[in-house]
Amino acid sequence: MKYIRQSIVVLVATVFLVPGFKANDRDGKGNHEKKKLIAKKHWPNGAQLVISVSMQFETGGQPEGAESPFSNTPLPKGQPDLPAESWYRYGGNEGIYRMLDLWKKYDIKVTSHVVGTAAEKYPEIAKAIAEGGHEIAAHGISWDNQWNKSYDEELQFVKQGVDAVAKITGQKAVGYNCNWLRRSPNTLKVLQELGFLYHIDDLSHDEPFITKVKGKNFVVIPYTLRNNDIVNIEGKHWSPDQFLAQLTFEFDRLYEEGGTKRRMMSISFHDRIGGTPAMMHAMEEFIKYTKEKQGVVFMRKDDIAKMVMNDPDTPVDNSEAKFNN
Amino acid sequence: MKYIRQSIVVLVATVFLVPGFKANDRDGKGNHEKKKLIAKKHWPNGAQLVISVSMQFETGGQPEGAESPFSNTPLPKGQPDLPAESWYRYGGNEGIYRMLDLWKKYDIKVTSHVVGTAAEKYPEIAKAIAEGGHEIAAHGISWDNQWNKSYDEELQFVKQGVDAVAKITGQKAVGYNCNWLRRSPNTLKVLQELGFLYHIDDLSHDEPFITKVKGKNFVVIPYTLRNNDIVNIEGKHWSPDQFLAQLTFEFDRLYEEGGTKRRMMSISFHDRIGGTPAMMHAMEEFIKYTKEKQGVVFMRKDDIAKMVMNDPDTPVDNSEAKFNN
Amino acid sequence: MKYIRQSIVVLVATVFLVPGFKANDRDGKGNHEKKKLIAKKHWPNGAQLVISVSMQFETGGQPEGAESPFSNTPLPKGQPDLPAESWYRYGGNEGIYRMLDLWKKYDIKVTSHVVGTAAEKYPEIAKAIAEGGHEIAAHGISWDNQWNKSYDEELQFVKQGVDAVAKITGQKAVGYNCNWLRRSPNTLKVLQELGFLYHIDDLSHDEPFITKVKGKNFVVIPYTLRNNDIVNIEGKHWSPDQFLAQLTFEFDRLYEEGGTKRRMMSISFHDRIGGTPAMMHAMEEFIKYTKEKQGVVFMRKDDIAKMVMNDPDTPVDNSEAKFNN
Amino acid sequence: MKYIRQSIVVLVATVFLVPGFKANDRDGKGNHEKKKLIAKKHWPNGAQLVISVSMQFETGGQPEGAESPFSNTPLPKGQPDLPAESWYRYGGNEGIYRMLDLWKKYDIKVTSHVVGTAAEKYPEIAKAIAEGGHEIAAHGISWDNQWNKSYDEELQFVKQGVDAVAKITGQKAVGYNCNWLRRSPNTLKVLQELGFLYHIDDLSHDEPFITKVKGKNFVVIPYTLRNNDIVNIEGKHWSPDQFLAQLTFEFDRLYEEGGTKRRMMSISFHDRIGGTPAMMHAMEEFIKYTKEKQGVVFMRKDDIAKMVMNDPDTPVDNSEAKFNN
Repeated sequence: MKYIRQSIVVLVATVFLVPGFKANDRDGKGNHEKKKLIAKKHWPNGAQLVISVSMQFETGGQPEGAESPFSNTPLPKGQPDLPAESWYRYGGNEGIYRMLDLWKKYDIKVTSHVVGTAAEKYPEIAKAIAEGGHEIAAHGISWDNQWNKSYDEELQFVKQGVDAVAKITGQKAVGYNCNWLRRSPNTLKVLQELGFLYHIDDLSHDEPFITKVKGKNFVVIPYTLRNNDIVNIEGKHWSPDQFLAQLTFEFDRLYEEGGTKRRMMSISFHDRIGGTPAMMHAMEEFIKYTKEKQGVVFMRKDDIAKMVMNDPDTPVDNSEAKFNN
Repeated sequence: MKYIRQSIVVLVATVFLVPGFKANDRDGKGNHEKKKLIAKKHWPNGAQLVISVSMQFETGGQPEGAESPFSNTPLPKGQPDLPAESWYRYGGNEGIYRMLDLWKKYDIKVTSHVVGTAAEKYPEIAKAIAEGGHEIAAHGISWDNQWNKSYDEELQFVKQGVDAVAKITGQKAVGYNCNWLRRSPNTLKVLQELGFLYHIDDLSHDEPFITKVKGKNFVVIPYTLRNNDIVNIEGKHWSPDQFLAQLTFEFDRLYEEGGTKRRMMSISFHDRIGGTPAMMHAMEEFIKYTKEKQGVVFMRKDDIAKMVMNDPDTPVDNSEAKFNN
Repeated sequence: MKYIRQSIVVLVATVFLVPGFKANDRDGKGNHEKKKLIAKKHWPNGAQLVISVSMQFETGGQPEGAESPFSNTPLPKGQPDLPAESWYRYGGNEGIYRMLDLWKKYDIKVTSHVVGTAAEKYPEIAKAIAEGGHEIAAHGISWDNQWNKSYDEELQFVKQGVDAVAKITGQKAVGYNCNWLRRSPNTLKVLQELGFLYHIDDLSHDEPFITKVKGKNFVVIPYTLRNNDIVNIEGKHWSPDQFLAQLTFEFDRLYEEGGTKRRMMSISFHDRIGGTPAMMHAMEEFIKYTKEKQGVVFMRKDDIAKMVMNDPDTPVDNSEAKFNN
Repeated sequence: MKYIRQSIVVLVATVFLVPGFKANDRDGKGNHEKKKLIAKKHWPNGAQLVISVSMQFETGGQPEGAESPFSNTPLPKGQPDLPAESWYRYGGNEGIYRMLDLWKKYDIKVTSHVVGTAAEKYPEIAKAIAEGGHEIAAHGISWDNQWNKSYDEELQFVKQGVDAVAKITGQKAVGYNCNWLRRSPNTLKVLQELGFLYHIDDLSHDEPFITKVKGKNFVVIPYTLRNNDIVNIEGKHWSPDQFLAQLTFEFDRLYEEGGTKRRMMSISFHDRIGGTPAMMHAMEEFIKYTKEKQGVVFMRKDDIAKMVMNDPDTPVDNSEAKFNN
């Protein structure tokens, strides 16, 4: 016990001996003041870093044989996969409500991408999300491929989703997320025709940007695979402490960059995956970590879209122009 | 390791500088008193969090070519896979006894899911589990699919397992766990007919619940893939420190939630996987970690089932009603 | 990084608050004396824990298309896979010599499993291993399946390997390791006929044991997949810090168990995998960690075999009797 | 978590107890002087350890269906994979510039392996790399197999890449990196004919070496899979903290070895993978870590090649002589 106390002493001493340490200091006051002033130049609201959380509500909308911890050993068609179905129900019974509790505890508003049939199956959940002050964004009427649809099919697919969820929540979506991000060449034109302000299915920047669709501004608020629960937990088999390390590493760099340019951090949680206790513990630790910095703002994506849409500082990227004219 | 040492430097600074630190404190006395009082309302026994450990005893019951570290390069049918068989024997020679030692050291009673043919091959192990004061639960007469059996086949499959193990241990199982959780639509009716009180093959809640089977109460004590050794160590290839991180992250969140609602944490170990030295070290570290909190109770699942079965505060979920009428 | 900081918060709290801490103390003198006395009963040499390292020397013996970081995208037969071949040469150029340096620095003697054709290609390496005071054990004349050979073929396969390596190193192997542990039902009889004392291709115990072969004692010194570089680094894709965590977790438990029963820890390194700088750094950190305990002894497997072969305290396990009579 | 706590115990113990500590000491002045003197013998420039970073610029050169987070579920030929394309653009929009900022912050010059078609698509990026004082090395005219080309095809493939990039950057490459390291038996002869000084597609040593091509010296500056972002992050699914642990473990060992022999550490980043915020945070933490040691020098590979080419202390390895005469 004594030698451990020594260790702390030694470590405390280290604090003052390690020259590099001051560079790591996160509490140096003047340091923050300086950053704040600089930051004011890059986001209209003066944030040094904007963080936007996506909360996918899909449970109940999954097709038979949808990806689950059991789907690598599929059952014969028609045979109910009861544990897999119970795994999905977890998202509705526990996942979304646990996340809503955490957002409320820290007064964070998020963007929820809601599958139409999920909202129809669990209307009370869709309502709870809306009543929590969160953005209701569209995610299709059902859990299905969108890239292979004709223009009209795709328009119906998106419109039905928006209408179904609006009827339940009273919110008409202005933001879109495709199944597995897989847009068709028509998706942005379809979204514009339906009055959407933005979509997220792009990984090319660390900040929102404008792309021209039929000559008009359309906002792209980049999504992430890097801070994405389904990709890292189910796909890469990370443990929650790895997810937390990823968030803190990503944050440290983007926050520093936010001192000299506009930076945004995107994080994504799916009801049945991110909504587990360990993942929400990781997220709470991350939220606490961000609270040690000034100028960190959590925002809904619709608010971001409105804020940057007509801001001359927002970059324009027309890499997909051939599809959007 | 220096990169960890750096973190400590940051930590020590934190301990003394970060105002948020008190919020992290796990030993603030009054804080605990408050939690305890609240917790009394959610579990009949006043626990703030109930933890239930499953210990699968399957070794000796595995079929030829059963999943092992060698089964991805299978040998021709009939050719004995000697290292794979020795890997399985480890569960009987070392795994179960190591776990029993740990449960005894901390006076924890667990639920052991026993495959009939495993008990027949190693009766002394089955007896040792029962004599340790642990619950003997059923896991089928053999290591085989259950979802594809007819009602009568399934009834025989379950009954033979119960009888075989009861003859050896003197305990008649009242709880059930299917091979890979994969129930048939008839499983709950079969279990009820055989006098079972509960099953675990459901992932939809973080607390026990009631589901109606032919109009009568049947308890579901949710299992876990999240704190499951076979899923994470053999399936996701985690190292034991990741398993420990998962347990502590999961615990921190569920314990906090336990202050305002009924919460249960499920952990699962298989003889040849969870019974290794590194995994039991991880579990001991986790047990010590839980001892720093008040109101944490380790329970057998049969005791949980009896406690909640007729408790009006136990939620009812009939999501599978179409199969259980 | 905050998630590490947390752990230390727990740690620091622990230092001052947890009564159990004294139990963790590694320097309490009397405590160690007590352990030592008890330990004397379990190993003939009074060790509390015996650790045995396997160092596979295979480079140069690999067949075309042998498993490598490139073998999942195989080239057409006959097309040389130059980066894969250079990856293998690393084991001979750097890996073995780096390991020999570490063993020498800490005066550790290991068991080296040498493929015959590898020694013939790099005789100077085989000699360096022998001259370092390490055990030269057999690993077959070439890198090939052994489980599918007839008794006579297998005898020749083993004998040629022993003779080829003995001619170079002057050491006649008494211990055996099969390719991927995959023995045939005849292997032990073959080894006994050739005068071997022991084999390692068994995973069923955490201590050496005797098995009867044609009625005579044959020693089994269990190998490990748990502390095995090829399984964890190449197979499970662990990073070296995970490997270090595995070693320390495994050690903590086995060392404690060593106070009341005979325990052995097996660790395995392959020239081109364990011989990398990061892995040897992990191993050095682990060796330093074991030095904080008393009664930890690193041994060659031939010395272990001789020590336990006629020791009445050595357990006997004839699980494979049907093959060995 | 105990394994971290252990590390601290080790750390503290080390500080006070381990005699070997002085060898580890990073601040003992005289100690460093000693090391420096020794080191002078191993590298012409007196470095104790040379670290060389590779920065692959490939974005824009990828063929349809190139490996991406989406390529395991390929779309029908001709169907644009829009999220995958946006993932690649990230390397050009953010990745390379973020890396250039970090290299500039620490005055590090790296070697950039540039695919010809990538430079033609993003000439401003290729120019920015060159203007940053970094080495422009060749990586083929396009993202394509090289091992299956005839001598003349391969010569054209390499030459076109060199010329295309030289026209944009003004730098004529003298170093080469093949697609996935996969050289043909003719590659070194082709490179020599084109005036190259070195190639990196070899994993057999931890230091540069000479190999004879048609009797003349050709330098090999070994590449790495161990400190390679695409192998570990995309292939092994590591989190960035694992990558940082790998770098620090690798560094600790190589730096110590650098006291007695010539050692080089190779690190590799690809625009869209290593250029993410979390990975660059990991790299910055690593750079800071190396700054605590004396005699650590970051170098471009062309400078290394010129320095060692005619140095008698540079080892000669003609393992591939049969191809290079």
